[in-house]
Amino acid sequence: VTDSVDVGFLGCGTVGSAVLRLLDEHRDDIFERSGCRFEVRRIAVREPDRTRDVPVPPGRFTDDPASVVEDPEVRVVVELMGGVDPARDLVLSALRSGKRVVTANKELLAKHGPELFQAAAGSGAGLHFEATVAGGVPLIRPLIESLPAERITRLLGIVNGTTNYILDRMTEDGIAFADALTEAQRLGYAESDPTDDLEGFDAAAKCAILASLAFDTRVVADDVYREGIARVSPADIEFADRLGYVVKLLAVAELEDGDVAVRVHPAMIPRDHPLAAVRDAFNAVFVDGPNIGELMFYGRGAGGAPTAVAVVGDLITAGRLVTEGRPGLTFTWEVRHRIRPMDLMESQFYLLLDVVDRPGVLAQVAGAFGDHRVSIKSVWQEGTGDDALLVLITHRANEGALRATVEDLERLEPVLEVRSVLRVEGEE
Amino acid sequence: VTDSVDVGFLGCGTVGSAVLRLLDEHRDDIFERSGCRFEVRRIAVREPDRTRDVPVPPGRFTDDPASVVEDPEVRVVVELMGGVDPARDLVLSALRSGKRVVTANKELLAKHGPELFQAAAGSGAGLHFEATVAGGVPLIRPLIESLPAERITRLLGIVNGTTNYILDRMTEDGIAFADALTEAQRLGYAESDPTDDLEGFDAAAKCAILASLAFDTRVVADDVYREGIARVSPADIEFADRLGYVVKLLAVAELEDGDVAVRVHPAMIPRDHPLAAVRDAFNAVFVDGPNIGELMFYGRGAGGAPTAVAVVGDLITAGRLVTEGRPGLTFTWEVRHRIRPMDLMESQFYLLLDVVDRPGVLAQVAGAFGDHRVSIKSVWQEGTGDDALLVLITHRANEGALRATVEDLERLEPVLEVRSVLRVEGEE
Repeated sequence: VTDSVDVGFLGCGTVGSAVLRLLDEHRDDIFERSGCRFEVRRIAVREPDRTRDVPVPPGRFTDDPASVVEDPEVRVVVELMGGVDPARDLVLSALRSGKRVVTANKELLAKHGPELFQAAAGSGAGLHFEATVAGGVPLIRPLIESLPAERITRLLGIVNGTTNYILDRMTEDGIAFADALTEAQRLGYAESDPTDDLEGFDAAAKCAILASLAFDTRVVADDVYREGIARVSPADIEFADRLGYVVKLLAVAELEDGDVAVRVHPAMIPRDHPLAAVRDAFNAVFVDGPNIGELMFYGRGAGGAPTAVAVVGDLITAGRLVTEGRPGLTFTWEVRHRIRPMDLMESQFYLLLDVVDRPGVLAQVAGAFGDHRVSIKSVWQEGTGDDALLVLITHRANEGALRATVEDLERLEPVLEVRSVLRVEGEE
Repeated sequence: VTDSVDVGFLGCGTVGSAVLRLLDEHRDDIFERSGCRFEVRRIAVREPDRTRDVPVPPGRFTDDPASVVEDPEVRVVVELMGGVDPARDLVLSALRSGKRVVTANKELLAKHGPELFQAAAGSGAGLHFEATVAGGVPLIRPLIESLPAERITRLLGIVNGTTNYILDRMTEDGIAFADALTEAQRLGYAESDPTDDLEGFDAAAKCAILASLAFDTRVVADDVYREGIARVSPADIEFADRLGYVVKLLAVAELEDGDVAVRVHPAMIPRDHPLAAVRDAFNAVFVDGPNIGELMFYGRGAGGAPTAVAVVGDLITAGRLVTEGRPGLTFTWEVRHRIRPMDLMESQFYLLLDVVDRPGVLAQVAGAFGDHRVSIKSVWQEGTGDDALLVLITHRANEGALRATVEDLERLEPVLEVRSVLRVEGEE
């Protein structure tokens, strides 16, 4: 019978185990909806002899990932090992031999997407990657299939649950970054080495994938400007709150004069923006277009079960393509837009300055902005004497101009310190 | 060449005109992404001779809709006329002759979906209906294609922009229902006869479609319990606010003991629920499942341009199926779950009572709840003497038991009036 599809797994951690459980539990539903029966033929793991709580006969485990990719019976490879090596070679080899690949590996895709899709197009195989961004939230498929009639202009995403959890704790409980991080680690939301999340590497990979899809072009992880959240202070969070904003780590992808601007950094967004309500470790992606207006996709961005739902959804699509003998979707990932250098990008900015409060200070500060044609939207002053704070929000301004303004501010004698500079998004 | 697909239109109002503009404007993009060139061959309208601002040669208009459906060159019919007659016969006839149909007609689908899908399955045609619910928000396709590995347990939707706009004005500006309605009509958010929106008929049709998809069963518009928003008072809105809730018109579809419970009514939802942040005339659908956790789709639910994006997305899918000679997706719409009668459904409730404030009143009121095993979660009392108000929130309780409780309360001598009963959703 042609309705049986042999599947090989690369990796079997939290997500892999959840996928195997879903495939077993929903076997009949999946057959009814897809016409496919998936047979898990071979699973490559580091320790094939370890006892695992998954509904698979033990003889299916191997420590040789190449044997999964080379098995002629395997028609679909599910890659859940993560990282670039050896995932890249294995996935390339699978795609070149015409096997369909379902992957949750954002790093691999964001770094080597063009090469992978070229291999897939060459053999007629398909590469499915719904699980790479925002776990269980259907996002990749709607961007590709539901919105071909729209030209997306901007995409704002909260795509890293760890940092959203930390910023949410800082906002809701008024605690400092380090304490929120400890709490996140205790709950399993942050890894023991949290660099990848905190410094925005994870979000930048997802930003590259989303920007490539939204603008039908090629953006890779290295194209994305990146700032982490470690420098966000309780004072920033508090001023944000008083001014009607919330601080989030945002992935921003937008078209500016035909260029693609891509960046990941903490930003203040208005409290009534739909992204401001994204709490805890949730993810959301907000999309702007001239016809659709505003769209948002929201849900659990990580975790075994939600990610497994996305993987199995892709597996069903891949299985249907296999049984119908159809080629997979090719996504050209061709360069259609230039990547805009950070200095030319535009944002609104929030600045927090320590100043000496005396007549003429505000004029001096305002002068520094004016010299670089950065327009000030609003200013607040707090405290007196040597202990005054100045909070400014600018209109949309050029990054380079803002940087030059900050350099000038640091040289002004009554400015003791430029304590914070954060971008403001979702407003103008 | 096989890449040209002739399309016929039934209706050409706001959405139809926007579809024609998108097809023209994005012609090259659409060809590149789909391999199809759509030729608009025939458009049925009431006044074919009227001048229209659409990029179509005037000779393509006709006042005979049957000629569109019967044209042997037309491979895809886009039905945007709305209503059941004559849309039903036209769509059935198109599907029976093997033409693909793209429709935005929620009423037709919610009333006659099973019959339409049977016709589509019989001829191998496809019926595409992304635009029937929540306009430009990709929702139908993700429910069908991205979540086949999940068993959805509950769906809460804000699917009517008019009522959300009215409730939002009442909440934000403290104005009464009638004034908010006038404002909505002035802005074009409400029709001159707003019954369909205000009484929940529009939302009930969408609820039936969503429930059918979410639970893979047959739910039609008449199955949906329905209450409109006309009785929501400024007092309800104000108490909701003070207790940490927001009032929304919700479409609720849930599985209760294997039955499908479907209902549309105003409800209080917690202020920190993602649906609470849905402002203005926006739509959102919130989905719960054991694996995905919580998902939400948010965006513009109506309007020509957003709906046109959904229609063109479907048209591209239909066009690909035509050029590849593949049958359309069949959705069986078979009865797999019983529809639960309203009396057996469960909700939390909010009640607002006018009472005479004297010793023993609360005991009497609480007794009425206890007699029907309705458990009280919290109580507030306001005012004194003959002018007191009692606000109660219950735990999740049976609808029949709550109704019996209200009947008993109305008979209690110190209860002057049961002023409001609203359900509370999204909490327990």
